[in-house]
Amino acid sequence: MSECVFCRIVAGAIPSARVFENERVLAILDVNPVAPGHTLLLAKEHVADLRDAPAVVMASLAEALPHVTRGVLAATGAEGANVLVNSGRAAGQLVPHLHVHIVPRRAGDGLHFEWRPARYREGEMDAWRARIAQAIQQP
Amino acid sequence: MSECVFCRIVAGAIPSARVFENERVLAILDVNPVAPGHTLLLAKEHVADLRDAPAVVMASLAEALPHVTRGVLAATGAEGANVLVNSGRAAGQLVPHLHVHIVPRRAGDGLHFEWRPARYREGEMDAWRARIAQAIQQP
Repeated sequence: MSECVFCRIVAGAIPSARVFENERVLAILDVNPVAPGHTLLLAKEHVADLRDAPAVVMASLAEALPHVTRGVLAATGAEGANVLVNSGRAAGQLVPHLHVHIVPRRAGDGLHFEWRPARYREGEMDAWRARIAQAIQQP
Repeated sequence: MSECVFCRIVAGAIPSARVFENERVLAILDVNPVAPGHTLLLAKEHVADLRDAPAVVMASLAEALPHVTRGVLAATGAEGANVLVNSGRAAGQLVPHLHVHIVPRRAGDGLHFEWRPARYREGEMDAWRARIAQAIQQP
């Protein structure tokens, strides 16, 4: 048996609050919700990190995501949702099994991500543009 | 010409720092970066909100996302990334054209999302589970 907690949940070895399931994905409630109805959409296949996810796994999550999000919004009466994948521990990924957080939001809920946008200095943006474009084009 | 700023960027009517492009998606640098190299992956087709996105648009974004994320990480030297879609104004969506934020992260970068998990009261989790599962199953 896998030691991955989400693999064990998928297998039914650990109980969970399942809200949706198909052949390739499972949606469960997060046991430590940021807001009521905070849902996790996970691939049944074990993939640790979004950055390494095979196309078929990404496609399965992407196919289910709007549908599951609409259900979460309808059931909670929320106006919107933050849909978040943390890739890597430095980004706050606690369970190394790819999962998508769906956090129901409403205006004035007091919940917000600390989002402090800055400005690039002159020339800095173009330097980043060139570096990133080149890195993406690497095979 | 569309009044949507991202449609105008896709069309080339507004300049942008393009880091990746294929037939269906475009990745650009966010002009108000939360961290250097903060990238936006957008569908070329105008879709306002993730919750309403057609399958083909979701599939195109999902296909490109790991590849673009790896490039952003390689170019910035970041250890991880927060990959975020804000669905709706209540969730902080400023431009009503579906886009994915890719925010490079490293340990101790001082950047964090305000993430205050709670616990469900007894019975509360199962009540939400039932409501959400039922809402997802609606056609």
